[in-house]
Formats: sequence, C-alpha cells, structure tokens
Amino acid sequence: MSSCGVLVVAGTHGNEVNAPWLLQQWQANPDLIDAAGLAVQKVIGNPEALRRRCRYVDRDLNRCFLPEQLEQGASGLEFQRAGELLRLHGPSGEQPCAVAIDLHSTTAAMGNSLVVYGRRPADLALAALVQGALGLPIYLHEADAQQTGFLVESWPCGLVIEVGPVPQGLLNAGVVEQTRLGLESCLRALYQVRQELARLPDALVVHRHLGSRDLPKAENGEPQALVHPELQGRDWQNIASTQAMFRAADGTDRCEAWVGGEIPVFVNEAAYAEKSIAFSLTRREVWPVEPNWLLALKQLLAAA
Amino acid sequence: MSSCGVLVVAGTHGNEVNAPWLLQQWQANPDLIDAAGLAVQKVIGNPEALRRRCRYVDRDLNRCFLPEQLEQGASGLEFQRAGELLRLHGPSGEQPCAVAIDLHSTTAAMGNSLVVYGRRPADLALAALVQGALGLPIYLHEADAQQTGFLVESWPCGLVIEVGPVPQGLLNAGVVEQTRLGLESCLRALYQVRQELARLPDALVVHRHLGSRDLPKAENGEPQALVHPELQGRDWQNIASTQAMFRAADGTDRCEAWVGGEIPVFVNEAAYAEKSIAFSLTRREVWPVEPNWLLALKQLLAAA
Repeated sequence: MSSCGVLVVAGTHGNEVNAPWLLQQWQANPDLIDAAGLAVQKVIGNPEALRRRCRYVDRDLNRCFLPEQLEQGASGLEFQRAGELLRLHGPSGEQPCAVAIDLHSTTAAMGNSLVVYGRRPADLALAALVQGALGLPIYLHEADAQQTGFLVESWPCGLVIEVGPVPQGLLNAGVVEQTRLGLESCLRALYQVRQELARLPDALVVHRHLGSRDLPKAENGEPQALVHPELQGRDWQNIASTQAMFRAADGTDRCEAWVGGEIPVFVNEAAYAEKSIAFSLTRREVWPVEPNWLLALKQLLAAA
Repeated sequence: MSSCGVLVVAGTHGNEVNAPWLLQQWQANPDLIDAAGLAVQKVIGNPEALRRRCRYVDRDLNRCFLPEQLEQGASGLEFQRAGELLRLHGPSGEQPCAVAIDLHSTTAAMGNSLVVYGRRPADLALAALVQGALGLPIYLHEADAQQTGFLVESWPCGLVIEVGPVPQGLLNAGVVEQTRLGLESCLRALYQVRQELARLPDALVVHRHLGSRDLPKAENGEPQALVHPELQGRDWQNIASTQAMFRAADGTDRCEAWVGGEIPVFVNEAAYAEKSIAFSLTRREVWPVEPNWLLALKQLLAAA
C-alpha cells in the first residue's frame, strides 16, 4: 500500500490554525488518525504565514496554483511555495502524491463540509464515499472565473475539508475533532478503493456554485449594510424569498430578491471581504453516481 | 450640556472592526445614536492597526496607559498613540473629557457586557445605571498585576463595552447593534446624572476577577489540549465542579478541579493566547449600591 501517496495539507492559510495543530498532534501520536496503511505526506502549506498568524504574506496561496504563472516563475512568497509543494509532492514530484486533501477552516457556519472544484470523476468518487460515510454537505465550486488557482486542482484528485464557524487564529477542540473525522474518513475511503472494498452510494448531493454577492457599498468602498442577522449562520439552509439579505446600522433592512431555491454558503467568511464576497449562492442538486467515477479513482490509486 | 466631554473610542484593537464601523456610520448619520446633548469626542484608538486589521503594531494599546512609562517617553507606535490620546482628549487635554467609553469585541461568548477596572465610585455608578437599564453583566477586573495599563483607567471615569462572540476582523450586524445599544445606554445614563434624573438600582451584580487559566502546554510551549467543547461558549455560567476544563486531540479530557462558584469569562478569546490566558475565573457578587458612587459621578460631570 505504501506506494499510494496522499498529500495532507494544513495551514494553506496561516490564520486557519486548527488543522496545523491537529497535524502536529498526529505527528506526536501516530494513533490519532488511522492512515489505513496509506503513505501520507503531511505538510504545512504556508509555514511563514502560519508563523505570522495571517492568511498569507504576498498573495492567497490557495489562488496560486496557476500552471501558466508558475511556469513563468511568478514572484512572491506564495507563488514560490506553490512551485515548491509541486516539486516536492506533486504528481511528478520527489515524493509523488496522487491525491491532495487540503484542510481549511472558516468563520462561516459551514459545519463539517467538503469543497470540490469542478467535476473530475475521481474527486466526485472520493466526495461521494465521504458523504456516504459521514453525510457531509458538498460545495461544488465551478465556473467562477474570478476564483481560480486552488491547490487541489494541481493534483489528479483532491478536495478541501472546510470546517466552521471558528474565528481566525483560534484553536477550538470541536473544530479539531471535526477536521480529524473528515480527514480519517477520506483516508479510509481511499484505502477501500485501493482494496476493492469501496461501494459508492446511488446519488451524490451537491450544492453547485451559482455566484456570489457582496455587501452594499458606498462609493468609497465602505459597506453601507451588513449581512442580515437572520441570514448569519444559515449556510446550507433554504431561505424564504422574503428574507432581507442585509441590514444597515440604523436597523433598516436592504431587501434584495432571493431566487427560489438558492442556498447560501460561506456566509460572512472573514477572509472573503477582500474578495468582495459577503456570501455565495448555490443550488442543491442530486446527481446519480456514475460508474466511471470510481473507475477513475481506482486507476489513479493503482498507478500511484 | 456641551461642556461635559465624553470620549468614545473604537478600534483600540485594530482587528475589532465592528465599533469602528458603527462610529463611521454614526458620523454619516447623527441620528443613529442619541448623544443626549453630551459633547462626544469620537476617535479611532489605533488607526494604523485598524488599517492593517491587526490587534496592534508594536504593543497592545490597551496595556499602554501606564503613567510612568508615558512620562518617560516609552517608544513604539502604541505608547506614542496613548500619549497622543491623552494630550488630545485626556482630562487635561485640548478637548478635555471626563469620561471614556472604550468599545471592544471578543471571540468569547461574552454577549453584551461591561468591563470595569477596579472600584472607582464613578465607574461603579455608571455601570450600575447601565446594568439597571439593560441588565448587562459586569466583569470587574482588579488585582491582576500581569494586566495593567488599560485605556479607561487614564480618565476619571470610564468603562469598556465588550461584545461577542465575533471573529476578529469580521463585521456582524448583531454585534454592531449590541454595541450601539450599550453605548447609547451609557450616554443616556450620563445625561440623567447631569440632569439630576438618575436613580441607581439598590444593588450591583459584578463578576469579580479571581485569576486566569492557561491551556496545558508542552515544554516547547505548544498546547497539549484545548478548551473543552462543553466549556466553550459558557461565559458567565455556573459550571459543574465535575466539568473537565480541557480536551486533547485524541478526545481524552484533562480534568482540573473547579472551585465551587467560580464562573468563567473570556473563554477562548483569540487575542489572549499570547497572554497565556485560556479563560479567566470570577466570582459573582451582589454589592449594595453606595450613595457616594452617584455623588462621585455627579461631581465629575459638574466639573467637566
């Protein structure tokens, strides 16, 4: 089994401190997470940002995995680190990994959840297995030209485990445990695929990205109203079409129309303010699981 | 009434962004908060830290109001700013203020609360009036040699409004509204004292500081366990003596004895990790209100 390289990344954002602490504890106590015999490479994504307890130094590392820029030797600490991670642990790296699991946390009430980028069959197989085991909701991020260069997209298979709500820079025992469960479930699923033991559920429930909304802003860029208190914390929930999105300081509501069936995620994530995102909107879809998904993941793990 | 200077400070910590936004909105809309005819000076405590969205640049500004160090011209951005605030708005400053209201937020579940430093009669009068009006709990911080130099201590009367839980750097409509209510209640109380309309309640309920506890740490300083999930969010609550304080990554509890009647506050405040504080312990006490409290506040406002 040891040839199946799985990369586990914590601290891709330096102020998301729970997963780095979990990895450190795992290092000290190998029984903490059952690696199911897989060859796991554990790395801190952005050690310098973690040291400074900030999201990034020059640029968001999780938007730096852009093949063209990396080939051209784009400058800055995070582009350098992205290139280094690929040289060390990329699919053709020194310690090659076929799968990347990237551990994140959020100030939004996302619970324990998965983020999948696009519709690669192997990603969907892994997500379906974890959803089948733990029931985690899945945010399918795709068709968003303003947000590209995610880490896991540079590995043949990969997904993000996203846990919240937790403030940036704050250790929280519950968030650590959710992260541990999510990671262990991923590793167990990969083991089962490798051992021909995996059985996918019949359907995959995804929340497909539709777009994002920003706060109402004044001409100088300052927010004129904030996420409505009745919307705060309601990630993954159906929202009544009459629900106001925003509230001003004087208590007046800013009503913008909800389209029926739109479900918010990443509601009031602190790091997205600079990206002009107050929350994203998704549509819940139930997809029949396709036979080629598991096949793709099997082939990947066999070749690794 | 205009001679009664009241200093309202937001952004003493640059990553506590809700009060600065409230002050900005108040500036644009004077009806947002009823100043009750008082001459209010609104300032951003640490503008450079707010710009950087960090707690402080060189040193915690809210530990820099140390008369001896300020007289000796202690260096660093925050000591400079402390001196500047006193020159501008101190009791003998260019625009003298008798009272300082310092607006903070916390990642701990403190709700809407007041922090009072020591037992100055005028502070206790103001706190009693606000508690009588809104019912806010009060953390009485005293006899803590490791934590000194708080801003409000440099004004003849002053208290902190502390609202949470909210992550650092994140705007939250509910937190803004709680801050607005707390501030307006303070201003109304000062107006009532000035107009001889104030009636203090019979008793003041305080949570008196007893001490602080840190996470269990390894020799290298890394936490070996975190605040227990069943303790998280239980600020101001009675805790059963059997409740474990901490939980390790493997799910085992670290039991340390609670002393009966000890009540935690500032449970898992992100900024206190560097101060080696996981939470503080208090004792709830009911104090009869003394006549000299209101007298002291009256004299202060009459002289202002």
